[in-house]
Amino acid sequence: MARYKQQRDFLKSNFNEFKNIKTDRMMKIEQPPIVKPYDKSSKIIDLPEVSEKVVKNNDIYKCIKERRSTRFYSDESISLEELSYLLWATQGITTTNKAGITLRTVPCSGATHSFETYLFITNVEGVKTGVYRYLPVEHKLLFMFELDGIDKKIDEITLDQPFVPNFAKKAAVLFVWSTIPYRSEWKFDITAHKKILIDIGHVCQNLYLASESIESGTCAIGIYDQEMIDSLLGLDGDEEFVLYLAAVGKKRD
Amino acid sequence: MARYKQQRDFLKSNFNEFKNIKTDRMMKIEQPPIVKPYDKSSKIIDLPEVSEKVVKNNDIYKCIKERRSTRFYSDESISLEELSYLLWATQGITTTNKAGITLRTVPCSGATHSFETYLFITNVEGVKTGVYRYLPVEHKLLFMFELDGIDKKIDEITLDQPFVPNFAKKAAVLFVWSTIPYRSEWKFDITAHKKILIDIGHVCQNLYLASESIESGTCAIGIYDQEMIDSLLGLDGDEEFVLYLAAVGKKRD
Repeated sequence: MARYKQQRDFLKSNFNEFKNIKTDRMMKIEQPPIVKPYDKSSKIIDLPEVSEKVVKNNDIYKCIKERRSTRFYSDESISLEELSYLLWATQGITTTNKAGITLRTVPCSGATHSFETYLFITNVEGVKTGVYRYLPVEHKLLFMFELDGIDKKIDEITLDQPFVPNFAKKAAVLFVWSTIPYRSEWKFDITAHKKILIDIGHVCQNLYLASESIESGTCAIGIYDQEMIDSLLGLDGDEEFVLYLAAVGKKRD
Repeated sequence: MARYKQQRDFLKSNFNEFKNIKTDRMMKIEQPPIVKPYDKSSKIIDLPEVSEKVVKNNDIYKCIKERRSTRFYSDESISLEELSYLLWATQGITTTNKAGITLRTVPCSGATHSFETYLFITNVEGVKTGVYRYLPVEHKLLFMFELDGIDKKIDEITLDQPFVPNFAKKAAVLFVWSTIPYRSEWKFDITAHKKILIDIGHVCQNLYLASESIESGTCAIGIYDQEMIDSLLGLDGDEEFVLYLAAVGKKRD
């Protein structure tokens, strides 16, 4: 349809066009950092070692079969062990090669992993309510800031949609994934952007299934106020901006 | 970066802009079919009932941990039971509501499921080499056509990349997902397209993990010749076109 032409074109392969492009990588421009730097004097929270012990429903067939987007949660908190497992399942590093390239629990085009994971935590055992960032290399949490009225703020960010999890009452943690697109553009130039969206889908599906395996539920959220969330997290909206969100909480009986 | 501006903008939420749009759904325009129609006189292949019995490695923790993009495969074929399971895990319908909306093994914004699954089969037990389409409502395969030099054709379509699975020798089946974007545009208008890419990532991650659970490997393929594959499958490249591919085969010891 003509009115959607440009957007439909974005979904298509542009690798024939790409053949004639010299990427920054080919031009020997230095590779950007594989993770976002942070102030070493920040408050850092250790995460328990990832362990299969938290997995209560380890049957993958059942997890695939029973997964549903979960929009209402119980009051039960998520343990730090469980959060550690969910972070590992979505962005955990399983191998780092000699060149410093990370392989993770999720596939990613060219292993460029352009994502950062922010957490809005409201009900995780032993963790103060607030906004955090995951440090995948260290497998730790960086405390960013407290947020007054965090529940209401999340409702605002997600545009008060009727079908969005009623975070204000029940969900335990909101995953907020940003992209730093240059990590992928450096290698894939104009073909990076389609890949970034597909790759965040890989990530979120692991969150869905890993949540299911700890008797929790997830609801992905694609509807949000871009400027509001970027500005809240201190992202410039160009070199880094939010891409996708997902709420997680314990299932109701 | 200015040269990527338009593409980066595509990755962002446009729901504030969406608020002022009347979607086709709001305009009471008829909903498009939820699956692509087919000629009932086609050659149809029954798929075995999906069963947990094919799952050899049912431990979800281990599947997440050990998954890697697999680029070389053994000569072993995939059974029809296993293919049935992989199709179910990626697009299988688990519930159909009164309005005819399907809920599947994968989450999808607004349950619009704009995808069709085509298969290039070269090594599936009891199935003739050729090109097929999955019929999710019936959970059956529709035979489309034989293809001379299918291996070489796949190499051409995937632009003979050095890192793409050497399908010509080893992989058993190539999944080719198309989108019929209007299924999602009808409901989400200009916000549909970002969702379509994320949603196909959900699908492919289930393929990765389900493959792992049957001791097979998957490699997603984002690099392909758009016109060549669309034309081969008889898609018009506008109302339907290919979005993403993935090879699957048994792992080598």
